Amino acid sequence: MTGPTQIAATKDKTLFTPGPLTTSQTVKQAMLRDVGSRDVEFIETVRCIRQALLALAGVSQETGYEAVLMQGSGTFGIEAVIGSTVPPDGKLLVIINGAYGARIAEIARVLKIDTTTLECTTNVAPVPADVGRMLSEDAAITNVAVVHCETTTGIINPIDQIGRVVRQHDKTYFVDSMSAFGAVPFDFAACGIDYLVSSANKCVEGVPGFSFVICRRDALQATEGWARSLSLDLLTQWQGLEANGQFRFTPPTHAILAFEQALRELQAEGGVEGRATRYRANYQALVAGMREMGFAEFLRPELQGNIITMFRYPNHSNFRFDEFYAGLNDKGFVIYPGKLSGTDGFRIGNIGRLFECDIQALLAAIRATLSEMHIELPCN
Amino acid sequence: MTGPTQIAATKDKTLFTPGPLTTSQTVKQAMLRDVGSRDVEFIETVRCIRQALLALAGVSQETGYEAVLMQGSGTFGIEAVIGSTVPPDGKLLVIINGAYGARIAEIARVLKIDTTTLECTTNVAPVPADVGRMLSEDAAITNVAVVHCETTTGIINPIDQIGRVVRQHDKTYFVDSMSAFGAVPFDFAACGIDYLVSSANKCVEGVPGFSFVICRRDALQATEGWARSLSLDLLTQWQGLEANGQFRFTPPTHAILAFEQALRELQAEGGVEGRATRYRANYQALVAGMREMGFAEFLRPELQGNIITMFRYPNHSNFRFDEFYAGLNDKGFVIYPGKLSGTDGFRIGNIGRLFECDIQALLAAIRATLSEMHIELPCN
Repeated sequence: MTGPTQIAATKDKTLFTPGPLTTSQTVKQAMLRDVGSRDVEFIETVRCIRQALLALAGVSQETGYEAVLMQGSGTFGIEAVIGSTVPPDGKLLVIINGAYGARIAEIARVLKIDTTTLECTTNVAPVPADVGRMLSEDAAITNVAVVHCETTTGIINPIDQIGRVVRQHDKTYFVDSMSAFGAVPFDFAACGIDYLVSSANKCVEGVPGFSFVICRRDALQATEGWARSLSLDLLTQWQGLEANGQFRFTPPTHAILAFEQALRELQAEGGVEGRATRYRANYQALVAGMREMGFAEFLRPELQGNIITMFRYPNHSNFRFDEFYAGLNDKGFVIYPGKLSGTDGFRIGNIGRLFECDIQALLAAIRATLSEMHIELPCN
Repeated sequence: MTGPTQIAATKDKTLFTPGPLTTSQTVKQAMLRDVGSRDVEFIETVRCIRQALLALAGVSQETGYEAVLMQGSGTFGIEAVIGSTVPPDGKLLVIINGAYGARIAEIARVLKIDTTTLECTTNVAPVPADVGRMLSEDAAITNVAVVHCETTTGIINPIDQIGRVVRQHDKTYFVDSMSAFGAVPFDFAACGIDYLVSSANKCVEGVPGFSFVICRRDALQATEGWARSLSLDLLTQWQGLEANGQFRFTPPTHAILAFEQALRELQAEGGVEGRATRYRANYQALVAGMREMGFAEFLRPELQGNIITMFRYPNHSNFRFDEFYAGLNDKGFVIYPGKLSGTDGFRIGNIGRLFECDIQALLAAIRATLSEMHIELPCN
């Protein structure tokens, strides 16, 4: 902590992670201000952000939807939804094909919510008919939760087909769209989503500090008295924002200013479709380059989203992940370890302020690092 | 959201609030970076911050203390402590002389924790002997909570004397030092504090996004399985930081970089003593100027801290708070409304990157605003 202001002598590393991400300089510069959290200017910023989020989801207040910001990381937003929207005597079905689905079930367990799970292997999509069968067999289930893009593997789950089944059974439907929202086109209303959570530092390309919930107002208003926490009470958070435009408790003002700018830049890029196009190009360049080097993806391509891709460790005696990670890190590239027990792999994210040239730079660094590790190409 | 990057055409307003505060430009500039939350550089930053917080409290890991950062606002940190450190069959005594004491009791109520309160009027300090009497009469009480500086009025509560009583009765002692820590000298160990919470955007002069807990390791380690939340689980948050230096869930990386710089600047100012001196000068200039205009403080001076001061509305038929607030706001000064039902007053904070010249500028703006409201001086 001693010494003068630290000025970075070098360029920041480029982040190929699921977030926090590399963001634009203008998004970060929006934080060079101090605004009062209860002042008119900030209240207007929050109002604009809430409207922009609804527009991004293709819904509106007029058609019965609301956007609520919640302090903390994305997990805090998920706990806010689970803890506030499962009735006291309710039962939650969690569809799991990765670590983030498992985390939802873990949240429910800690909150002592009656919970059942539909567990699939991590390299296949959940089957909507299986969800229907569980809902038919267990009438006690009131809420269903699924992850949109399971960051563990990068798989995109069929939230539309699952939503149709949940709707047929008249259950409350929660989608954890943490790492997908803003870059994966889908029809919010047609999916029958009651609650969706994402986070500031994912595909909208803001900085971390809060998550947001997009939800059906009718559903939310029916949850009076259900919240299992004061801080993570979704209904009173919304009621506070509606009453005077203010947060109940101190909001991360700087992260919110950055998010306002990030939403402007997302709009300038052509919204969800525009951003999806860039991420798709990143993904294609990445996979083409990695395959050329001999790396194999964990998922079949038709299940793979454009957000993050898991690659298996090469079957080569010289490959050690720590060494590989450090070699890339030294060259200014941050990749992400695997999160899947039982399968050795690492992950590379395509999201954030990354372009095809960044992917090519990463691929060159991977080639150089493999060479340093005395791994000839193709590596498998 | 349309239009190009928004560049503020004018200087930011000066914030005379309890936070978010006016921070230094260098603190904000520390956020002009994107770092990986699981990368070595950021892990080192978090380690340094945790050590610096212990040093600021005058304790250390060697003497049995730990610092834990928690995502979200200060209230999230308080809920983390209450929800994680009151045993399942425990009972909490909350000492209340303002809105923030009442909030602790409200958190406990929502968490279904057995709770009793010692309520005092808002303009007097709680009497330690009353705490002792309650602890003697109710052996079920396991935990005691008190607010250090009650931001409702600015009163400084006697955390040392209360701590002595709590210790005599061998109870767990929690101090909410949200708005005091970093600018009010006290002896952490001698107060017998088990858990203390403060927030990044208070007297350390960082930006909002997380709170921090300073606690006795022994006490924390005894709380296994007590947490009533996954996100706000204090023990596993600490265990995560200890295991690999990482947060369990995405940390607000930019706010943490700003905090690292804020801690450097606090140290350069002479630590807690140095900062207290500046705040004291701000307070004295403020009160002298306000009294000269005829304003009366709500508290007797010997109870008043240097953090935030509550003034009664002047007894003048032309005074309307909304108009007063707006007049100051137009001139670039943000003050804070009252939070006390039954007593009309407003609050002015002295904390943040404010100097005596800022206080004088505020006083001049107050004079001008009163003149615009046709309120002659003295106003009472």
